[in-house]
Amino acid sequence: MQNFIVDRWLPDEDSSVNVKSEWFIKGLFLYEVVRTYNRLPFALNKHYDRLLHSAEYMGVEKAVPDFDMLVSLVMEGIEKNKTNNELRIRLVLAGQNLLLLYEELPVMSKDIYELGVKVGISPFHRPSEYIIPGKIKLIGAPWSFLTRTKLGEYYDLLLLNEKGEVCEGSFTNVFLVKEETLITPHEASGILPGITRENVLNLARALEMKVEVRSVMAWELFVADELFLTHTSAGIVPVRRLENKVLIEEFPDGYTRILMDNFEGYVMTREDNWKGIKL
Amino acid sequence: MQNFIVDRWLPDEDSSVNVKSEWFIKGLFLYEVVRTYNRLPFALNKHYDRLLHSAEYMGVEKAVPDFDMLVSLVMEGIEKNKTNNELRIRLVLAGQNLLLLYEELPVMSKDIYELGVKVGISPFHRPSEYIIPGKIKLIGAPWSFLTRTKLGEYYDLLLLNEKGEVCEGSFTNVFLVKEETLITPHEASGILPGITRENVLNLARALEMKVEVRSVMAWELFVADELFLTHTSAGIVPVRRLENKVLIEEFPDGYTRILMDNFEGYVMTREDNWKGIKL
Amino acid sequence: MQNFIVDRWLPDEDSSVNVKSEWFIKGLFLYEVVRTYNRLPFALNKHYDRLLHSAEYMGVEKAVPDFDMLVSLVMEGIEKNKTNNELRIRLVLAGQNLLLLYEELPVMSKDIYELGVKVGISPFHRPSEYIIPGKIKLIGAPWSFLTRTKLGEYYDLLLLNEKGEVCEGSFTNVFLVKEETLITPHEASGILPGITRENVLNLARALEMKVEVRSVMAWELFVADELFLTHTSAGIVPVRRLENKVLIEEFPDGYTRILMDNFEGYVMTREDNWKGIKL
Amino acid sequence: MQNFIVDRWLPDEDSSVNVKSEWFIKGLFLYEVVRTYNRLPFALNKHYDRLLHSAEYMGVEKAVPDFDMLVSLVMEGIEKNKTNNELRIRLVLAGQNLLLLYEELPVMSKDIYELGVKVGISPFHRPSEYIIPGKIKLIGAPWSFLTRTKLGEYYDLLLLNEKGEVCEGSFTNVFLVKEETLITPHEASGILPGITRENVLNLARALEMKVEVRSVMAWELFVADELFLTHTSAGIVPVRRLENKVLIEEFPDGYTRILMDNFEGYVMTREDNWKGIKL
Repeated sequence: MQNFIVDRWLPDEDSSVNVKSEWFIKGLFLYEVVRTYNRLPFALNKHYDRLLHSAEYMGVEKAVPDFDMLVSLVMEGIEKNKTNNELRIRLVLAGQNLLLLYEELPVMSKDIYELGVKVGISPFHRPSEYIIPGKIKLIGAPWSFLTRTKLGEYYDLLLLNEKGEVCEGSFTNVFLVKEETLITPHEASGILPGITRENVLNLARALEMKVEVRSVMAWELFVADELFLTHTSAGIVPVRRLENKVLIEEFPDGYTRILMDNFEGYVMTREDNWKGIKL
Repeated sequence: MQNFIVDRWLPDEDSSVNVKSEWFIKGLFLYEVVRTYNRLPFALNKHYDRLLHSAEYMGVEKAVPDFDMLVSLVMEGIEKNKTNNELRIRLVLAGQNLLLLYEELPVMSKDIYELGVKVGISPFHRPSEYIIPGKIKLIGAPWSFLTRTKLGEYYDLLLLNEKGEVCEGSFTNVFLVKEETLITPHEASGILPGITRENVLNLARALEMKVEVRSVMAWELFVADELFLTHTSAGIVPVRRLENKVLIEEFPDGYTRILMDNFEGYVMTREDNWKGIKL
Repeated sequence: MQNFIVDRWLPDEDSSVNVKSEWFIKGLFLYEVVRTYNRLPFALNKHYDRLLHSAEYMGVEKAVPDFDMLVSLVMEGIEKNKTNNELRIRLVLAGQNLLLLYEELPVMSKDIYELGVKVGISPFHRPSEYIIPGKIKLIGAPWSFLTRTKLGEYYDLLLLNEKGEVCEGSFTNVFLVKEETLITPHEASGILPGITRENVLNLARALEMKVEVRSVMAWELFVADELFLTHTSAGIVPVRRLENKVLIEEFPDGYTRILMDNFEGYVMTREDNWKGIKL
Repeated sequence: MQNFIVDRWLPDEDSSVNVKSEWFIKGLFLYEVVRTYNRLPFALNKHYDRLLHSAEYMGVEKAVPDFDMLVSLVMEGIEKNKTNNELRIRLVLAGQNLLLLYEELPVMSKDIYELGVKVGISPFHRPSEYIIPGKIKLIGAPWSFLTRTKLGEYYDLLLLNEKGEVCEGSFTNVFLVKEETLITPHEASGILPGITRENVLNLARALEMKVEVRSVMAWELFVADELFLTHTSAGIVPVRRLENKVLIEEFPDGYTRILMDNFEGYVMTREDNWKGIKL
């Protein structure tokens, strides 16, 4: 793969950055993970806005190129990295330096969509918005990192905040369905509000589902009718088992299935996911 | 400067690491900051133990060389980097890769010791030990990073945890003196228990001062008789002003002065600070 | 004194209630403390609204008479209890039973207004609104009770919530002045929003002072320019000393003084403090 | 029934206390609930110790008679109140006044033991030990009171503290069994450590069960193998349903059943439950 490293395109083996710089010592790495559909970057403008917001918060906004420049760079990389698969592109702001790191998007097993996955509760906590501003997407958030070391047989482990509210998985957002209502934790609980999460919320509203974005206590997961995860690489992933309990005996025929069936069509045709990209 | 990068010595301009590796994406950087006295690494064994503890917690302990090997590498670097000043050496564990980064230790102005510094309260919170294990020294802890962007005229800003207890500064530990007792926040509040902090506690006990290591509410700082900071590069730094208040009218003639006067003699002669180093 | 006990007027020595009833076992006592000015009950309608709100929350609203009936009862008791001093009237809802308990309003020493009082920080916590709904005024809130046992030489002790935010004293609300802004804790911190507090906020706005009602960390008290307490019996009480610090060297000539000078004139002429009372 | 009111025995209808006293205004009511077995007061010495501890904490220990005197009074009341049923005796400390309130112990339906009960999660929080000392048994703790107003079809509702840990029900303690370990929340979570809870813990240890007294997150209840409640009036009450979930399909044949079968024999023969009582 070719990657954009500060000011030039370099192959993987030469994609290095100097570590005697202040930003490395301080650990100032902001990032976004973008995927392609049909080799076009999905929701790039939303990732851009989020990166810019984080950069402003951290005082390094000068390092962010303007959006048109970023689109050009991203598209140039897609051109350079020919492959039969979709791509995953990490936009990294290492201090004042922009990095675009390319790799193939892992192909998800169909099983996860058809059989559902197993999730658990992380032994680590995530601070709520009261303690750390949740939206700042930092490489190396210790709660996510530590949780990933404990995944084992679980697809993901859900993190609770200091109040016992559910936040998110180590790389996913979480939704539950209860009494015909779609529920997901609000930002105050301490979450990275993912682009896929936002698309699912918009899709649900377009389908006239009842939606609640609110504080969710961890135990509510165990009395949910349905449960699913979302993340950029895999979209919507249904959950069958939670800790040692089979949450769903019959595989969901409810909201989860409806959202999964409509998700790709929806995101592919929503204009706001393709702003600035020539289709 | 020459730095040890994974497996070889390289000058600053060539001290780069590859960023297409999993550890970079995950943000797995553990580190320690060691200083020299008389060009010998201070308390290297203590930094080593702490790094090893963190590495075990994160599951990358195989990347840590044995202590004798580390001593050899550190001493080799000191030899290579000839200078009239003392050195500051960062031991970094970037995933499975060891980095030793050398720079000159900044020379502190005598004023900070004679006049005392100004500190404030950080607008950001630090999670307590209940949320994040405090002892894991990660590059990029967001609360420290964000606090440093707000220092302005303050020497350091003190971080409170979610209960309103004082933890530490963005690069310092904090002590107060009240009713002839030396007080410093305990680890449960969420602190990096610094090597200098530990030496000060040991020195105070050797001087038969009364010592309390406990939960300290932020407001207690404002009714303290004396206040000082500790960090590796500067040792003990007395505080004169706290937020907009002059805390100490007359410069302290109390515990702070006694500890400062005895600190260097004490740490230079304590065997446990020089274990494994040939003096 | 004559008191209204459930359904009749009784002298102090006969003012008893049966304790073999469910409400006593459950401890369901709601109350309000009303004072008179010129032997007329002050802000009775506000106390009534608050009592009714609490009663609805606790499910005993049927026990609250309508407002006109309460006015009649309160006035009847004022008639019966002839005295040269002002009165303090406790409206108590003991389960489904209404009690009106009369006593003389203690006369405050002029010294507290001229010299200012000493306050401290309570060793006990008060739960925030997140844990317990703050507005429900219950007899026997343990944090207030326990705090009162520790008053000693302090006029009142200020309670912090579980986040280290200031809430209130054991019988007072607290205000600070900082950078020409009048600041008082918001309800989310866990306070009983007193009638006097509300009148002070309204007066300050009428005087075009800048006002902030927000989360206040305990340490902010120690960097305030002015500090005062409010409670029904004494109105506005200036604070000179906070814990072991003299907060105000020169007695305040600022917002506190302006508010004190205007307080009685303001509350006596505001129509909403006398609603339903024939003046 | 005859009750001991301050200094004499009075029938229910005359069991009144004066409300113009400071302790009523302050809401200082401490209490214990004692039951009889075979018309003898169970674990009276343990209730006495707890009442004395609370009284010392609140500064009213002078109002507590010595233990022998209390035994005499309690036994005198049992004599006076002849009935075919067991008795429930409330020891109340109303300020400096001792009240002993007698009533028949409600007879529990056998169904609750054979079929198990339904419990839920309270919408209210209970402060942890960090905020309020848990052991002080006060009439009118608002979290218990408010929870009881919401019981509806539930036998009890379990209260969580501000961290999302389970504390207790509004009148019960809670135990779970998981992986052949008996688990119950520790005191730091904020509980009234009941006498029945203590007897169950002692019995389990005598039966060589593995026991953990620790922080229990609310969601752990939902993955328990067994769940039961304890309280003075009913002993051990098995739980079958938790919120909308059937937690136990087959009625427990495990630890719960073993503890229930052995409970009465154990408590009746343990000397420390009958200290000071002539059997």
